[in-house]
Amino acid sequence: MRICFVGDSMVNGTGDPEFLGWTGRVLRRERHRRPELTGYNLGIRRDTSGQVRTRWRDEVTRRLPTEIEGRVVFSFGVNDAVQEVPVAETLANAAAILAEASSRWPVLMMGPVPIVPEDARARSRRLDDELAAVCGGLGAPYLAVFDALLETPVWLAEAGAGDGAHPGAGGYGRLAEIVLASPVWQAWITSGA
Amino acid sequence: MRICFVGDSMVNGTGDPEFLGWTGRVLRRERHRRPELTGYNLGIRRDTSGQVRTRWRDEVTRRLPTEIEGRVVFSFGVNDAVQEVPVAETLANAAAILAEASSRWPVLMMGPVPIVPEDARARSRRLDDELAAVCGGLGAPYLAVFDALLETPVWLAEAGAGDGAHPGAGGYGRLAEIVLASPVWQAWITSGA
Repeated sequence: MRICFVGDSMVNGTGDPEFLGWTGRVLRRERHRRPELTGYNLGIRRDTSGQVRTRWRDEVTRRLPTEIEGRVVFSFGVNDAVQEVPVAETLANAAAILAEASSRWPVLMMGPVPIVPEDARARSRRLDDELAAVCGGLGAPYLAVFDALLETPVWLAEAGAGDGAHPGAGGYGRLAEIVLASPVWQAWITSGA
Repeated sequence: MRICFVGDSMVNGTGDPEFLGWTGRVLRRERHRRPELTGYNLGIRRDTSGQVRTRWRDEVTRRLPTEIEGRVVFSFGVNDAVQEVPVAETLANAAAILAEASSRWPVLMMGPVPIVPEDARARSRRLDDELAAVCGGLGAPYLAVFDALLETPVWLAEAGAGDGAHPGAGGYGRLAEIVLASPVWQAWITSGA
């Protein structure tokens, strides 16, 4: 199985001194079930939903040959919240991306994460609900992590001690645990197996 | 500093149970000098020089905004050797990629690695010399790793125990050490600092 992770700096794992991010930690654990697992990290710093929309198809198609089982995880929205992209625009981008990607591969959407600035954090939290609704309408699995991360002191503490947005190894490790423990993730990663 | 690593499955780190590959291990060590270091892994399994040539510009440009120091490391050629791409074609692709990339960013080319099948390994070794000559002609730094890896029993042993091409954590760890200890790498990564 080959999984593309498409999104922003949180997908890239920016700020993690281990250079694994949550995606590397999740892959490391899932490999026990699938020794042949390959991951492609397609997170780009500062990417908004609009930027993801323009590039995801080319980058994913190159990495997922039709003869091998491929899957796609998306995670974006925080930069839309920071840059005050109109919510309707973010949701239209998400719907377009997820509808097309779902027609070709099993797709999972992970919701936005909390960041330090309070106004952008509040907008990110609202996006969490709105993106869940979009995914519900499309029948795409949605993995919400915002509230669970807020309850984890290490996430905002590390982000605040860093650049205000990105945690360190503790935060990314906690996010990986949240993902791995999620019934949404478990159902998705084992489906079709 | 943001570094794009562009190439094939060896850049991706395919087969590494740690999901770091040599690039993750190199980044982890270099971060001591540059806490803000970001890495983008653009290795794709089975990519030949021709496939790298068609995609590198789009993928790198999206990840290296002009206002932030960006660099590019290329590593490909093994799949050209496996698929018996004519040497002249591989060299023409490499020259075109490296000439254009060098005009925009500091670029380093890492040579091909040894693989288990003897005929493809011999072709890969010849490419090593030819690619070094291309880089010499362009004034681009070339980091040869083939001979050093051949002297490291773990590389071919792990590859042979796996899929015949990709090592495990030991081989990728050794490759990272070879890179970090190389005067070519050291001169390149500290230049302009």
